[in-house]
Amino acid sequence: MQRRESEVPLVKRVYLDNSASTRVDPAVVEAMLPYFTEKYGNASSLHVFGREAGDAMERARAQVARLIGAKPSEIVFTAGGTESDNMALRGAARQKGSGCRILTSNIEHPAVLETCRDLEGEGFGIDIAAVERDGVLDARTAVGKLNGKTALASIMLANNEIGTIQPVREIAEECGKKGVLVHTDAVQAIGKIPVDVKKLGVDLLSMASHKFHGPKGVGALFIREGVRIRPIITGGGHERGLRSSTENVPGIVGFGKAAEIAAAKLEDDAARMKKYRDRLIDGLLTIEQAHLNGSREKRLPNNANLRFVGIEGESLVIKLDDRGIAASTGSACSSKKLQASHVLLALGIPEWQTHGSLRLTLSRFTTGEEIEGALRETPPAVAGLRAMSPVWRKLKAGERIEGVKNG
Amino acid sequence: MQRRESEVPLVKRVYLDNSASTRVDPAVVEAMLPYFTEKYGNASSLHVFGREAGDAMERARAQVARLIGAKPSEIVFTAGGTESDNMALRGAARQKGSGCRILTSNIEHPAVLETCRDLEGEGFGIDIAAVERDGVLDARTAVGKLNGKTALASIMLANNEIGTIQPVREIAEECGKKGVLVHTDAVQAIGKIPVDVKKLGVDLLSMASHKFHGPKGVGALFIREGVRIRPIITGGGHERGLRSSTENVPGIVGFGKAAEIAAAKLEDDAARMKKYRDRLIDGLLTIEQAHLNGSREKRLPNNANLRFVGIEGESLVIKLDDRGIAASTGSACSSKKLQASHVLLALGIPEWQTHGSLRLTLSRFTTGEEIEGALRETPPAVAGLRAMSPVWRKLKAGERIEGVKNG
Repeated sequence: MQRRESEVPLVKRVYLDNSASTRVDPAVVEAMLPYFTEKYGNASSLHVFGREAGDAMERARAQVARLIGAKPSEIVFTAGGTESDNMALRGAARQKGSGCRILTSNIEHPAVLETCRDLEGEGFGIDIAAVERDGVLDARTAVGKLNGKTALASIMLANNEIGTIQPVREIAEECGKKGVLVHTDAVQAIGKIPVDVKKLGVDLLSMASHKFHGPKGVGALFIREGVRIRPIITGGGHERGLRSSTENVPGIVGFGKAAEIAAAKLEDDAARMKKYRDRLIDGLLTIEQAHLNGSREKRLPNNANLRFVGIEGESLVIKLDDRGIAASTGSACSSKKLQASHVLLALGIPEWQTHGSLRLTLSRFTTGEEIEGALRETPPAVAGLRAMSPVWRKLKAGERIEGVKNG
Repeated sequence: MQRRESEVPLVKRVYLDNSASTRVDPAVVEAMLPYFTEKYGNASSLHVFGREAGDAMERARAQVARLIGAKPSEIVFTAGGTESDNMALRGAARQKGSGCRILTSNIEHPAVLETCRDLEGEGFGIDIAAVERDGVLDARTAVGKLNGKTALASIMLANNEIGTIQPVREIAEECGKKGVLVHTDAVQAIGKIPVDVKKLGVDLLSMASHKFHGPKGVGALFIREGVRIRPIITGGGHERGLRSSTENVPGIVGFGKAAEIAAAKLEDDAARMKKYRDRLIDGLLTIEQAHLNGSREKRLPNNANLRFVGIEGESLVIKLDDRGIAASTGSACSSKKLQASHVLLALGIPEWQTHGSLRLTLSRFTTGEEIEGALRETPPAVAGLRAMSPVWRKLKAGERIEGVKNG
């Protein structure tokens, strides 16, 4: 897709890729700043520089804990959601010992699915529960996959591509009865829906700061009191021996501040995002042969993911970028790969149609103006791509297009 | 140790714990700032926010590579030195397969020693080369420990407690002849002595940004072209599949800037630090029964580590803190533990004497005034502690003190 000079970019850039990463809240940056150049001690040091760093870290731990209804002692800081997922899965599996089985779903983030694949190579068994066509697990079907050897279930709270919310509470309840540990990747859910580890009944929960206006490079794993896992990174014994490494104090302080703000603003943020999301989905569904991917009801308030038959999502993202709109085809991780999304395939969408998907994700900072910008720019972009699309031409002519892979 | 009101703290705090962590260079913070609130894209995203994040990350990769004479493609970003060490050891061991052996030294950082211990539990063999009484390995003795099963050697470039510089080049040369991979933990060496991966002949090298005026929470592992290791964190396939996780763009940008500055200023910085260090060591050695821990010649220009017979280092650190001087007993990681330092024990220092050690470590920002402050405050602090020390009283009275553990 060549940039056309005639397509003058909007003056203000529209950012609708908040499930990939968010703008750091200026209040978060402000909270972090002293920890770079003034309070730069190592949190393990005994002197005043160390104590002020350590105290700040513990305040942040309490802020993060409060956001999810946990105790501060149940929070272990990590470098992000992927590390948290790896720590939960590898740490719990290693603690249980080779031979046990892990239950997961077919729409998990690669941080879970790839790690399960890796653990399979180490002698652990993996069972995969399939979502329904709306991208949501049926809890009864999922727990039906539990067996006597299942030691751990890892079911995401909300999907990163289509935003569908999974019945984690119901699954955790059954797992609890059977003595199966439950991990949930809540990376996309935090700051969008209420998350309470007690209500969910989970043992392990992954978070990533940069998905809700905190800095990149910091996350946490909630580990319920009494649950034992083995560390994946060993050394100086930081974080009670669970995650060795000089603590990222400024990052942790920013994460804490972002958690505090998210807790205070969740209700308002969610209501506003949902209103904008609905306007966006309704507007885009007026485009011919446009379909929403995943359930509309059991869905994060900030996620719109639609497919436009007959075009390539990647071309659409590039065309929208030319018009000043930042969007995605699905997860950022896979945006440079050419495979069809495993999430969309799991919904039973034909492969050739999965390639025509567009994900628009909102945040606290998303404005009505941005939504209108996306609604104004997307239809002509889709139309322009369809005008050049042989698949679209065939479809309109009523020809068969079975077997078409790259529409 | 109670704080005494009469000990008025110095107005300006003296920071001499730079091996624990350093002040982030204001130019580094300035370079990072736009990546929090303006250029906040996910580096994997296709749109302009993603591209500007990705481009910044690649510039940083080139800056870090240049500092150690590597190619940008040989740099994998991590969350810090401990993760880099874990990735090198676990990744290389897993690639080689269970049953092979790892050679290391008895003064490595816990990120290496604890990880070796963990790998031992997974079926890998560990051989440990012992340093001489000056805290430096004899290269010939060390390579004498290699055997037919050795697949990897991990020898630190400079020690974190006593600053001794190890003969990594000589050891790597022998390892190369025998097809043994060589990893070096260069976390403390970077920014203090020239580090060139080609001259050293190493295959893997760990770095941590926060030890040379970059931000905490970011580091790198150099992996020589052609060397294969397995990832320890799996997921979206970032960093060519070697380290999955949304990249910490602001942290990486800061790390790159810190590397650029370190490369430009290394010579001047090292000369100035060495001058200050020598003034500090000479001044402190005038204290009765004070001894330098580790070689004076084969030593980082920023490290002074001395022991004062008859006192507790921890009490000294607290007393100095009261007087406005931030110091350490040894590594920050172990500053809250009560065990004797494995590094000092490796030097053959009696256990009861190891507890009386003080580490003062310098940085680019250390001033002559700070050195004078430490020289002014340390002797009375040592004298004050000795006045209350039963061990010191016995020593002065010529009594035997064998078997004394906590002087």
